[in-house]
Amino acid sequence: MKNSRLKKQIQFIIEADKIKHIFRQNYLINNSRRENDAEHSWHLALMAMILSEHSAENSLDMLKVLKMLIIHDLVEIDAGDTFAFDKLKNKDKKEREEKAAERVFGLLPEDQRDEMIELWHEFELMKSDEAKFAATLDRLHPLINNYKTEAAGWKNHIITKRDIEKRNNHTKESAPELWKYIEEIIEEIIEKGSIISEDKQ
Amino acid sequence: MKNSRLKKQIQFIIEADKIKHIFRQNYLINNSRRENDAEHSWHLALMAMILSEHSAENSLDMLKVLKMLIIHDLVEIDAGDTFAFDKLKNKDKKEREEKAAERVFGLLPEDQRDEMIELWHEFELMKSDEAKFAATLDRLHPLINNYKTEAAGWKNHIITKRDIEKRNNHTKESAPELWKYIEEIIEEIIEKGSIISEDKQ
Repeated sequence: MKNSRLKKQIQFIIEADKIKHIFRQNYLINNSRRENDAEHSWHLALMAMILSEHSAENSLDMLKVLKMLIIHDLVEIDAGDTFAFDKLKNKDKKEREEKAAERVFGLLPEDQRDEMIELWHEFELMKSDEAKFAATLDRLHPLINNYKTEAAGWKNHIITKRDIEKRNNHTKESAPELWKYIEEIIEEIIEKGSIISEDKQ
Repeated sequence: MKNSRLKKQIQFIIEADKIKHIFRQNYLINNSRRENDAEHSWHLALMAMILSEHSAENSLDMLKVLKMLIIHDLVEIDAGDTFAFDKLKNKDKKEREEKAAERVFGLLPEDQRDEMIELWHEFELMKSDEAKFAATLDRLHPLINNYKTEAAGWKNHIITKRDIEKRNNHTKESAPELWKYIEEIIEEIIEKGSIISEDKQ
């Protein structure tokens, strides 16, 4: 290929295919198998399109929200999926993912590499209203999955109500209407006995 | 749930999970299995982010392009995947997909249903520059897959160079640089003997 810029872009696009082999803890809604990162990222982008009216901010840059959601898990090609409630693996998550971002986004032309890394950092650090809304969806999605699959994604872990509330806490402010829904489904999940309402001792 | 609008939105989001069970003819790049529609749609959105500079139009509404790509295959939940080169199944594709659009998008609140159906029609009919660029990516993606998998997605079909050129024809105008790349990989695929260069008799 003569166009070396396009060549780099295509190499990145091909590398990105590997995200389809990175499996999350959560199951598909029909409970048949775990979900992979490509499927999850796609679903978040769809959720953003449909649920944006519930953001507390009226003037979200939705293009930025979608871009963030589309790329937010690409680092997992190298770093793997780190389960949100796995305290041990979360210790070196940042380091593993920073290294992955350098390699994976580093396949792109320099300007696009910088843009993608900046976008990913903005998301990770919840630095903007867009990042906060994207993070709200990223945390809401597994809740819906677990709600519909008798908490299949949590069955090998001890998850408490406090764990989930803590992880979704910023949604109280970034999307109050979604927070109400989260509270409702947490109660239903507790009633079914899939998570415990008390904190771990 | 008290909020009946949100309830409809969540029902739609849950229904959309089924797209992860709709498999395409194309294989993942590591050739391990067929790709599903969620994975494909995610990959197209990523491609749009990275390749937009190659569109012949300087002022594409990229939010619209991404939205189109994210929702473009949702009708296949009911209508199934119709292989691009399957002349028989393509005969009633439009009818099957229109019916599916009514049901699937019909789960949403009315205003969002209308918006999604309009967006999907715009894409299907290539009615705008955004739709043309989205369609370019939708046709380029399986080419890259087949190029990297020794044409695994085409192995049960007789595909000619003319078939592929015809399907990607509008890319000549909508993204000339991508068209050059398409011509290059078609030649390589022919050299490997995965498709035939002559037309079917």
